[in-house]
Amino acid sequence: MKKMKELTISVVGVGQIGGSFALALKKNRIGKKIIGVDKLEVIDNPRIRKYVDHATFDLKTGIENADFIFLSTSLLTIFELLPRIISHMKPDAVLLDSGSTKKEISQLMRKYPEKILIGGHPMAGTENAGLEAASPTLFQNRIFAFTFPTRKSRRGKKTVMRILKKIEALPLEIDDEKHDFYVSLASHLPYVLSLSLTLLSKDFVKENSLLKKFMASGFHRASGLSLTREEMGRGILSTNTSQIVNMMDEFSERFKKIKKFIENGNDEDLLYFLSRIRSFQSELIEKDESTR
Amino acid sequence: MKKMKELTISVVGVGQIGGSFALALKKNRIGKKIIGVDKLEVIDNPRIRKYVDHATFDLKTGIENADFIFLSTSLLTIFELLPRIISHMKPDAVLLDSGSTKKEISQLMRKYPEKILIGGHPMAGTENAGLEAASPTLFQNRIFAFTFPTRKSRRGKKTVMRILKKIEALPLEIDDEKHDFYVSLASHLPYVLSLSLTLLSKDFVKENSLLKKFMASGFHRASGLSLTREEMGRGILSTNTSQIVNMMDEFSERFKKIKKFIENGNDEDLLYFLSRIRSFQSELIEKDESTR
Repeated sequence: MKKMKELTISVVGVGQIGGSFALALKKNRIGKKIIGVDKLEVIDNPRIRKYVDHATFDLKTGIENADFIFLSTSLLTIFELLPRIISHMKPDAVLLDSGSTKKEISQLMRKYPEKILIGGHPMAGTENAGLEAASPTLFQNRIFAFTFPTRKSRRGKKTVMRILKKIEALPLEIDDEKHDFYVSLASHLPYVLSLSLTLLSKDFVKENSLLKKFMASGFHRASGLSLTREEMGRGILSTNTSQIVNMMDEFSERFKKIKKFIENGNDEDLLYFLSRIRSFQSELIEKDESTR
Repeated sequence: MKKMKELTISVVGVGQIGGSFALALKKNRIGKKIIGVDKLEVIDNPRIRKYVDHATFDLKTGIENADFIFLSTSLLTIFELLPRIISHMKPDAVLLDSGSTKKEISQLMRKYPEKILIGGHPMAGTENAGLEAASPTLFQNRIFAFTFPTRKSRRGKKTVMRILKKIEALPLEIDDEKHDFYVSLASHLPYVLSLSLTLLSKDFVKENSLLKKFMASGFHRASGLSLTREEMGRGILSTNTSQIVNMMDEFSERFKKIKKFIENGNDEDLLYFLSRIRSFQSELIEKDESTR
C-alpha cells in the first residue's frame, strides 16, 4: 500500500462535498496530486485551483492514474458515472462514493466484484450547493458511514479508514440496508416534513397574504430543508422509496397520537407528555454536541 | 395622555419576553419607572436590577400605580392573573399582554368592557426561557400583532403604537380569530410536527442505539421546536385546539399528496414538484430577510 502522501486522488464532482473533501486532503497533506473531475462549467471556474491541483472534464484522463477516487456527484449521477469510471480505474484503485442512500448503490457495486468499490455517506453538508459552500472542516467530528458491498471491497478498508481519520471524520461501518433505514428517519423524513409544510403554506399564503408576516424563525427552521436542491431530493426519494414511505406511515401514527392528546384536553396528561418529549430532545442534542 | 418619558410601566412576568420588553424600554428611554412583577425566585435574582427599576412579587403594589402594564407570563398564567390585575389597575391604565394565542384571551378581556385591555403577540422569542435569554433588540423588525377586544380598548391604541414603534417592532393590528388561524400554521403546526418527529425517534432510538449517530443538523432543525417549554406548549395546544387540529388535518392531506408523488416514481414530475416547493420556500425566506 502506498503512503498517504504518495497517492494520486481523483475527486469526481467538485461541489460542496467533493470540494470539502479536496480541501480536507490538502489541509492534512494527503495525496501527491489531487485531480478534480467535473462538468466544463465547474472546471472553467478559476477558483477550482484552490481546491485541486489539476482539473479536467474528461473522465478517462481524470481517473486512469488515480489510486483513490472519491465520487461525490449528485446521487443519480453516481449511478450514471459509476460504470464508466469502473472501466477506467486502475486494478488496485479504491473508489469511495458519497451518495445519501446506500442500498441501490451497493447493488450496482456488486456487479463489479473484482473492483474495490466502497459505499460512503458523510453526515455533513448543508442545503447550500457548489464549490463556494465547501469547507476543509466540513467532515470534522461528523459521522462518515461506509459499507462494503463485496468481499473484495474490504481491501480498501485500511486506505479509507486512514483518510477519514486524517480528515478528522468519525468513520462508522454499517450495513447498507440499516444505513438507509436510519437515514430515512434522521434525514429523509425531516426533508419530507419540510416539503409538506412548505406545500401547505403555499396553498394558504395564496389566499392570505398577511400570513407571511407570521412566519418567523420557528417556521423557517421547520420548513428549511425544502431548500434542498431538487436533484438531490429526487435522488433520495427515488432510491430509498420504500424505507421513506414506511417511515412516513410511522410518523403519521405518532402525529395522530399527538392529535388525540391535544383533542383530549387533559392538561396534566398533556403537560407530562410534552415534558417527556422535551427531555428526550434535550438528550439527543446534548449527545450531538458532545460529538462535535 | 402622559408623555412616554413620564409613564410608570409594570412588566408582569420578567422572563425572556418581559425582560426583553423592559430592556427595550430602557434602551429607548421610555418610562419614568419600570416595575417588574414576578415570583419570589425571580425577584430574588440580583440581576433583575439590570432589567427593571423596582421589583416586587406583590401584584397589587406592582400594578396600582402603573400607566401601562405589559403582561408577559406564560399563556395559562395570563388567564389566571388577568382578573386579579384588573382589580388593581388605575382606571385609565393600558394593559397589553403577550400571549401566543389571542381568541380565548380576547373573550376573557371582553368581560371587562370598562378597562383598556389589548391583546398582543410579538413574533419573537426562542425556545430559551428566562431573564438570561432576554435582549433589548428581541422585538426589532419583528411583527408585533395586536388586537382590540372591545371598543374601549381602542383608547390604548396610541400608547401601544408609540411604544411599539419606539422599540422598533412592526405593529400589526389583526382580528383575534385570524391571528390564531395564522399562527396555527406559522407556529403551532411546526411545533406539533417537531413533537411528532421527536416522539417517533424516541420509539426507534430505543431499539437502535446507532440511529442517534445519524441525527445531524437537518434532524435537529426539524425537531428543535420540541424544546419549547411544556407550560408554553400546553398553553398553546389547549387554547388554540380547534385551529391546530384543523391545520393538522390540512397538513395530513399534503403529506399524503407528497407520499403519492414519491410512490408514483415519475422522476420528471417529482423533480418539477420539488423545484416548485423549493422556489416557494426561497421566496418566503427572502421576504423574511427583507423585513429584518
